Amino acid sequence: MTSPEAREQAVLEAVGKRRELVNEAIPEELPIQRPERLYEASRYLLDAGGKRLRPTVLLAAAEALADVETLSVSYREFPSLTDSTVDIMAAAVSVEVIQSFTLIHDDIMDDDDLRRGVPAVHKAYDLETAILAGDTLYSKAFEIMLETGADPERAVQALGILAKTCTRICEGQSLDVSFESRDDVTPEEYLEMVEQKTAVLYAASAALPAVLMGADQDTVDALYGYGLDVGRAFQIQDDVLDLTVPSEQLGKQRGSDLVEHKQTLITVHARDQGIDIESLVDTTDVDAVTEAEIDAAVETLEEAGSIEYANTKARDLVQRGKDRLEVLPDNEARDLLFQVADYLIERGY
Amino acid sequence: MTSPEAREQAVLEAVGKRRELVNEAIPEELPIQRPERLYEASRYLLDAGGKRLRPTVLLAAAEALADVETLSVSYREFPSLTDSTVDIMAAAVSVEVIQSFTLIHDDIMDDDDLRRGVPAVHKAYDLETAILAGDTLYSKAFEIMLETGADPERAVQALGILAKTCTRICEGQSLDVSFESRDDVTPEEYLEMVEQKTAVLYAASAALPAVLMGADQDTVDALYGYGLDVGRAFQIQDDVLDLTVPSEQLGKQRGSDLVEHKQTLITVHARDQGIDIESLVDTTDVDAVTEAEIDAAVETLEEAGSIEYANTKARDLVQRGKDRLEVLPDNEARDLLFQVADYLIERGY
Repeated sequence: MTSPEAREQAVLEAVGKRRELVNEAIPEELPIQRPERLYEASRYLLDAGGKRLRPTVLLAAAEALADVETLSVSYREFPSLTDSTVDIMAAAVSVEVIQSFTLIHDDIMDDDDLRRGVPAVHKAYDLETAILAGDTLYSKAFEIMLETGADPERAVQALGILAKTCTRICEGQSLDVSFESRDDVTPEEYLEMVEQKTAVLYAASAALPAVLMGADQDTVDALYGYGLDVGRAFQIQDDVLDLTVPSEQLGKQRGSDLVEHKQTLITVHARDQGIDIESLVDTTDVDAVTEAEIDAAVETLEEAGSIEYANTKARDLVQRGKDRLEVLPDNEARDLLFQVADYLIERGY
Repeated sequence: MTSPEAREQAVLEAVGKRRELVNEAIPEELPIQRPERLYEASRYLLDAGGKRLRPTVLLAAAEALADVETLSVSYREFPSLTDSTVDIMAAAVSVEVIQSFTLIHDDIMDDDDLRRGVPAVHKAYDLETAILAGDTLYSKAFEIMLETGADPERAVQALGILAKTCTRICEGQSLDVSFESRDDVTPEEYLEMVEQKTAVLYAASAALPAVLMGADQDTVDALYGYGLDVGRAFQIQDDVLDLTVPSEQLGKQRGSDLVEHKQTLITVHARDQGIDIESLVDTTDVDAVTEAEIDAAVETLEEAGSIEYANTKARDLVQRGKDRLEVLPDNEARDLLFQVADYLIERGY
């Protein structure tokens, strides 16, 4: 099991088993109710698919902490580290619901047409409904997180993490928007933005089970740090994939970040190498760009070493994240957290 | 002090004293921080004014429950009904922050230009920033509500009310949008929509101090019911004022609800009287409508008895809301809750 393909196969299988359970739990936690159009729009992206990586991290962290055989105990009545049980699945659904809310609003802000291979919510429905669907998911995530049955002190802490996480996601998104009109973003600024926009939700996913199950602060911090590291690696890899994976596989136009002048670690590095990023692609219209233009741009970025630079950074972050998990018991679930970390940078899309 | 003018003067003075304290607390709870543009946009409407009616209801309900001399005790260290203190001002700011978030997103959905006499956030800034500012306020409201220092069990209950309230506001807004394309909305449906869109936040404002201070369930329920009743009255009155108050005083075009085919209790009633609501005003463009057209439409609605119907409904709701407060100690703060209820339907704008 040492080939990348075999490793990927193993992690996808483990993720897939949890994804099935998360997919069953989503309609339980978020049933289509009146007004139906609002709830259908709220569920639209959730039902369109997604790997459920964040819920998987959350569920695997819970299993690693409880030191139980993986998939042997109901996530709905999961043993905490004291003598109570916690509905850890509710927490897992909550973070996925937050993720879905941010995607709906991000697609409006970027005016992206496609997401997960289907029309974005504001295209499939309309702007009003998409804003409201996002807003509904937002409060639903808090409602769901309140249903874990954790003791009130832990529930309050968990809610605090969730709220703070959402605030930081907004701050990160705002930085990302502001970067589009700047040509002097540093790698440090870029990584700060990515931490806020993307990594904090991985961090919350990893740390929330520790909080809800009553782990000590060092364990909470270690899991949070793991999430921050692998979450940043995930976003860096996402930026790489935007350039290297065919559009059909991505579910949206390859190179769209480049066309829309979005800053990535790759473009920030390339600019430092003297490359005129804004001129790499002639158009700023995603619908007008040609595959040949993207190919030429990618070649330039490869020659500048910028893609390799991003890959190295992502690998370093994944290693650091994995090292943090030394505080956990050595078990199969912890191995899964290692594998997920590796997968985040080895995945093809 | 029995003339309407004297009553209005008295309540505005009492509201004004609390507004000043709320206005001081807002920048404490929501300081402008990095990224500054995001936080400036988030604070923009909050700083533009507002009567702070919901925070006033919350603070007055707390004072009525504690049975203390009004304005004699710090809202930051307010006595609960057991032997602890609660930062009741944090709760008051939290509901105002929720209110502000809904206004920002509503203005985008309605594409309204003006709010509180200043440009709407998506006009003063841009669409992206306005969506993000609303989203930031959303999570900040939860963060702030977590800072009351209430014991965890009560804090969890309060967070649950806040989350459920936000969900219902979204549901109400969604119903409101769907009503725009319907011509068979009943008064019952309209009142259900208003309950969700508007009244639940008044209900939460009234009930939250009872929850945070440890009042019994009957008291929580009575205050919640008060808020639902007077909140619906408030929205009905808002719909009346949209037709009867000059544009300069409203801070937006008079009659805009009519132009935009928004359902109100007035139009729902008038349609029952056989009036062709959609033909009352020729244009659907708020910028193109004339004062004479609005005047003629209002006259038609008055002749149909629709404005009086709405006024009567609002008065009945206010009376029922006030009756519910019999469970509270008879004190000055309870009187203020009565006065606020009266004011909501007697106010000129």
